[in-house]
Amino acid sequence: MVDQAQTSSFQTVGIVGVGLIGGSIGIALKQQQLAQQVLGVGRSLTNLEIAKSNGLIDVITDLEQMAKVADLMIVCVPVAQTRTVLQGIFPHLKKDAIIIDVGSTKMDVIQVAKEVLGERIHQFIACHPIAGGARHGASAARIDLFHNKQVMMCPLFENLVSDVDRIEQLWKDLGARVYKMSALEHDHIFAAVSHLPHLLSYALMLQVANAPDADKKFVHAGAGFRDFTRIAASSPEMWTDISFANRDALLKELDGYLLIVEQMKKSIQNGDAELLQKMFQIASDSRKDWQG
Amino acid sequence: MVDQAQTSSFQTVGIVGVGLIGGSIGIALKQQQLAQQVLGVGRSLTNLEIAKSNGLIDVITDLEQMAKVADLMIVCVPVAQTRTVLQGIFPHLKKDAIIIDVGSTKMDVIQVAKEVLGERIHQFIACHPIAGGARHGASAARIDLFHNKQVMMCPLFENLVSDVDRIEQLWKDLGARVYKMSALEHDHIFAAVSHLPHLLSYALMLQVANAPDADKKFVHAGAGFRDFTRIAASSPEMWTDISFANRDALLKELDGYLLIVEQMKKSIQNGDAELLQKMFQIASDSRKDWQG
Repeated sequence: MVDQAQTSSFQTVGIVGVGLIGGSIGIALKQQQLAQQVLGVGRSLTNLEIAKSNGLIDVITDLEQMAKVADLMIVCVPVAQTRTVLQGIFPHLKKDAIIIDVGSTKMDVIQVAKEVLGERIHQFIACHPIAGGARHGASAARIDLFHNKQVMMCPLFENLVSDVDRIEQLWKDLGARVYKMSALEHDHIFAAVSHLPHLLSYALMLQVANAPDADKKFVHAGAGFRDFTRIAASSPEMWTDISFANRDALLKELDGYLLIVEQMKKSIQNGDAELLQKMFQIASDSRKDWQG
Repeated sequence: MVDQAQTSSFQTVGIVGVGLIGGSIGIALKQQQLAQQVLGVGRSLTNLEIAKSNGLIDVITDLEQMAKVADLMIVCVPVAQTRTVLQGIFPHLKKDAIIIDVGSTKMDVIQVAKEVLGERIHQFIACHPIAGGARHGASAARIDLFHNKQVMMCPLFENLVSDVDRIEQLWKDLGARVYKMSALEHDHIFAAVSHLPHLLSYALMLQVANAPDADKKFVHAGAGFRDFTRIAASSPEMWTDISFANRDALLKELDGYLLIVEQMKKSIQNGDAELLQKMFQIASDSRKDWQG
């Protein structure tokens, strides 16, 4: 008998949303024989057919058929669609099956999971792999997408320790480094280092694009502008989603940020070079010290 | 007789501030035989000795001795030091000599040049090469620093056309692409695409660094944060300088930016996903279309 806590392999795995993330999980599970069979569910049949022919999944099915047989289900959809997906799974969910997600926010996803799954919330384990890329869809999937990438896990006290261990091992088998934290902490951290920078980057790009002399500005914008605005090319739908899903933490970080910017603005208006340089110095030193 | 308008070569060139920019100009001039002799002036004798032994300059001298013999002087100091340098040059400035600068702001530099040089302002041509690097000082100089880089020139109506042509040809000989524009336009463009992003990047870095959970945030900050904050590692002294030198244009851009951020904030507070996504969409499309 195999000790289930020591292995991350599953009989049947269902992936809902076989895009870059879902598809990369699929192919890695299959290649490493961590799943006997991988089922794919999604909105676009064309995408699912690409996923199947590229070996990311074995079978194309729907939420109901998947839920009836899957031991592990991985929800890889925009966070705003989590409720609909869980509602489709819930009536058919097997007793010992595990559901995980890969969303960029965790408080809202867990809230939705509690509302839909009720007493069966112990079967849901919230995850957030920090991996992505400029390309999307099944055709962008890569077997090594999670190699040396961070995965956040936000276990609930309702989860079984053995289930949490299995999922942790699964991510490690895909090459990831796993960190566990509360959903509250997760959302505050990512509001500061990911969600806020996205909003700020979109805002600068919008400002320059809307300027009467936008063409000239774009001609002369250099490497600093390019780096600062790279994340402004991200999916508007996904980041609108995330902005609302993590609304409270994002607004809190934004208010803190605006205070700092106002202080810089006042120091320029007041001719206080000493204060401005001090603020720039702390920022510059921190950036140089950061090993990220 | 050589037609001076057709050649960018000079008998004696003086470089004030032989760092990354000044040193790279020096070695390129010497290697391409665009100057018979290159003089170096600066605050740090150690740096000047490195410059001389690395072949960036031929002779170490001071402002007075340089001004007495130089046909072209290139001021490569932080913009706030421009006045002092021009005051040192002015009493000894040869009748047909040309002075250029390389500062990141142009309105303030030209204002200072007019105050110091008076009727001899026609001898000053404002320039701004868009080139830099993480490393500083003479030891960071590179012969190809300006290859395929942009150089902004902001000629005054007082400048002789033949002088402007010579300087334009000089930058082209160093491999640069030259753009001419008014100082006002220059400062507005670079406030938007360079100075404001620097301030915003410093502000985010400062916010995360000052957070009680800064360590955790830095552990989980990813590629987007890294790109967004790369310019926050820039020199605090130089960017404090620039922020004050281009104060009016920077504050104007900052106010425009804050209006956009406030609009995004309100759309999140009001649950207006349509508006937020529309703003993100314009930004995202512009970023994808930009060939920078």
